[in-house]
Amino acid sequence: MAKASAKGGSRGKSAAPAKNPADLTAYEAAAAIASRNLTSEELVTACIARIDQLEPEVKAWAFLDRDHALAQARAADDWAREGKGLGILHGVPVGIKDVIDTGDMPTEANSALFKDYRPRADASCVASLRAAGAVIMGKTVTTELASSTPGATRNPRNLAHTPGGSSSGSAAAVACGMVPLALGTQTAGSVIRPASFCGVYALKPTFGLVSRRGVLLQSHTLDTIGLYARCIEDLALVTDAAAAYDSQDPVSISAARPRLSEIAASEPPLPPVFAFIRTPAWEQTSSVLREAYTELIAELGGRVVEIDLPTLAQATECQRIVQSAENAAYYGLFREKKPELVSDGLTERLKSGARIAAQDYIRAVNMRDMLYTAVEDLLTHYSAILAPSSLGPPPKGISNTGDPIMNGLWTYLGVPAINVPLLEADGLPIGVQLIGARRDDGRLLRNARWLARHLAGEV
Amino acid sequence: MAKASAKGGSRGKSAAPAKNPADLTAYEAAAAIASRNLTSEELVTACIARIDQLEPEVKAWAFLDRDHALAQARAADDWAREGKGLGILHGVPVGIKDVIDTGDMPTEANSALFKDYRPRADASCVASLRAAGAVIMGKTVTTELASSTPGATRNPRNLAHTPGGSSSGSAAAVACGMVPLALGTQTAGSVIRPASFCGVYALKPTFGLVSRRGVLLQSHTLDTIGLYARCIEDLALVTDAAAAYDSQDPVSISAARPRLSEIAASEPPLPPVFAFIRTPAWEQTSSVLREAYTELIAELGGRVVEIDLPTLAQATECQRIVQSAENAAYYGLFREKKPELVSDGLTERLKSGARIAAQDYIRAVNMRDMLYTAVEDLLTHYSAILAPSSLGPPPKGISNTGDPIMNGLWTYLGVPAINVPLLEADGLPIGVQLIGARRDDGRLLRNARWLARHLAGEV
Repeated sequence: MAKASAKGGSRGKSAAPAKNPADLTAYEAAAAIASRNLTSEELVTACIARIDQLEPEVKAWAFLDRDHALAQARAADDWAREGKGLGILHGVPVGIKDVIDTGDMPTEANSALFKDYRPRADASCVASLRAAGAVIMGKTVTTELASSTPGATRNPRNLAHTPGGSSSGSAAAVACGMVPLALGTQTAGSVIRPASFCGVYALKPTFGLVSRRGVLLQSHTLDTIGLYARCIEDLALVTDAAAAYDSQDPVSISAARPRLSEIAASEPPLPPVFAFIRTPAWEQTSSVLREAYTELIAELGGRVVEIDLPTLAQATECQRIVQSAENAAYYGLFREKKPELVSDGLTERLKSGARIAAQDYIRAVNMRDMLYTAVEDLLTHYSAILAPSSLGPPPKGISNTGDPIMNGLWTYLGVPAINVPLLEADGLPIGVQLIGARRDDGRLLRNARWLARHLAGEV
Repeated sequence: MAKASAKGGSRGKSAAPAKNPADLTAYEAAAAIASRNLTSEELVTACIARIDQLEPEVKAWAFLDRDHALAQARAADDWAREGKGLGILHGVPVGIKDVIDTGDMPTEANSALFKDYRPRADASCVASLRAAGAVIMGKTVTTELASSTPGATRNPRNLAHTPGGSSSGSAAAVACGMVPLALGTQTAGSVIRPASFCGVYALKPTFGLVSRRGVLLQSHTLDTIGLYARCIEDLALVTDAAAAYDSQDPVSISAARPRLSEIAASEPPLPPVFAFIRTPAWEQTSSVLREAYTELIAELGGRVVEIDLPTLAQATECQRIVQSAENAAYYGLFREKKPELVSDGLTERLKSGARIAAQDYIRAVNMRDMLYTAVEDLLTHYSAILAPSSLGPPPKGISNTGDPIMNGLWTYLGVPAINVPLLEADGLPIGVQLIGARRDDGRLLRNARWLARHLAGEV
């Protein structure tokens, strides 16, 4: 059943928070801090209280030094009191997936291989967040090496269910108000799927928008930094803060980055029309998902057209080949050196990846721009593609983080994708995935915001 | 025995040719045409006469339409007579390897797969040459698909010997004065080795300097357009004409291209010191090559230092893996569709390439910049690397174009390499290879010119 989510549509930028600061959106919190109606210390204290309350069951954090987080918050407050210029995330806490380097915290990737590993420097994206004034709250739980073997995190919407993975802790922490923002990474479906399962907003931006320097390398063709938030405005804000050209990341986009926050907050020139694509794995979706989508499509009426794009089956297959092969090339070195520190599940995946022939890999990489052409053409006629974010609601148990098959093809194509937490079944979230053209992240955010507000009856 | 070659050192830019126009260097011919002391028609007529005289034995040409070449020459002369601005190669004929597209001539790649194939447009590098005023003389013989199976070309220095390959016709045509300039391609040693065997100058420029759009794709990581000429000044001139940024070639260097002709013609600020590297295949070189190099090193005295760079063995191996895998990915499609049109030799190579694992290929590609670092460091201390261009003089017979093992590592590293035709044994040429830092093609040309002039007693 389609459930209207009004969060994304909240327009009033209240500077005087009446509610628990941990429940503020990031842009509300940043505005309150900038206008001296809230201190970063109050905000971080509220978030820590929320963590202290929920963490024993949710287990979203791999590393959290409360004193260090509060010290950053107090330093941010001192800075603000001195009247210095404030970054767009000044004093706002962000959770960082534990495969992303932090110069002041360990980065263990949920693997014995990285036990006690302390990077010498921040990853580029973390450095960008700090430059925007963010408080780096701590490190969130990942599956083993951002692959399949789950961590201990539970879904805060229902503790009996998986939060998804591999960005399990980031999705869960944002979903239950431990932090307003978090960073994840996606190689197949590691950002969008957990967002779908936990009922939060997430953006996997255009490939190359956010630098990957200082982030665990799993697949240079696919690895993408993603962002979690509780509304579209916050997604735009944190992406503006994290995105920057980086000559050290060979795929980093060197073109100017328009301010996503401004585009996302603007009204579409015309009401959007979405292209609904079932995508090749539709037959594997759960019946409750199909029912929810039937209702959603009906509710959208003339604002959605169902489209068939048969070439997407090839994109799904190419993503699988590229990820397996590159994963084997990179993680295979770990397995060769310290096989006892790699889980059985990952070992099997790496063995399978090692069998992929170079010629099949090369062809799969080379298909990418060709297959994208059909998507790009479609997006000249439609505002965005609408497709499921996951095969259904989060599976029961935490031994399996679910299947990324609804996401891998979009990661492969390098297009921006957003999870909009619009649907639910039996109290469990089911996300709606919107997909845009490469480098058109702003328009995608704007259309996602329109969709959330439209279903909330606001537009 | 070291043989001084004075060609590269010729300084007088005579505008009044007293000799057969076919024996002029390209810069002499261009200057004579620009000053109206020679017409392009006279030059092309002289080249055609040379071709008519030698082609029955040398067999350098895959396609030559004398009338079409003369028509281009007359059009160039008409243009000059009208007083219009002239490009740097105005009226000068260039031979084009038959794997490079020409919109007005077939491009058959010495393969039944491309029989009668007529491209719709010029390759970018051909279009650049035409923009510089060049007359596209015709298409030169390549081995089958620029791989190993030889064409019919013979070495003009001794018809009983191979000219090398795969750019067999381009090297041979320039060597015997059929054209002053020609284009080739190199994936392992297909430009430098034929130059060594035929006793001509050749430049394999920095990877990405000359666009590969419209050129048969064998290996996107390695394929490089190369240039043939009879002196260093001409190499600089034709490279200036052919090199241009091309957004359609993903590896095209977008930085500004300094005029190589100016740098090449300038004096080194200090006399160069060369780093002599035997490279990993030294043990396979012929005894006459080793004797010739011993003499050359002795003659250079303090201007050369022998250096050992053990990491080059890995570069040799990585090149082999990358070429085999990418070759299988691209040509494998030909073999799958029309196996009967692929030679047995190439079929075996493709089968072998198909067995390469993706993870080994990915690691081999990724080693490139790491292995280049050692070469780059060395080139901050030395003017250029000096190494053999081939294992020895051209082998006897034309059933085998020789081994590219002295070249593949440099192609892989993406560095510019020049063949300087300085040595000979038993009347057969042995080239000296000079290697420079990436994007430092101008300095490399200048040092190569210094070396040729130094051995000729001019500096």
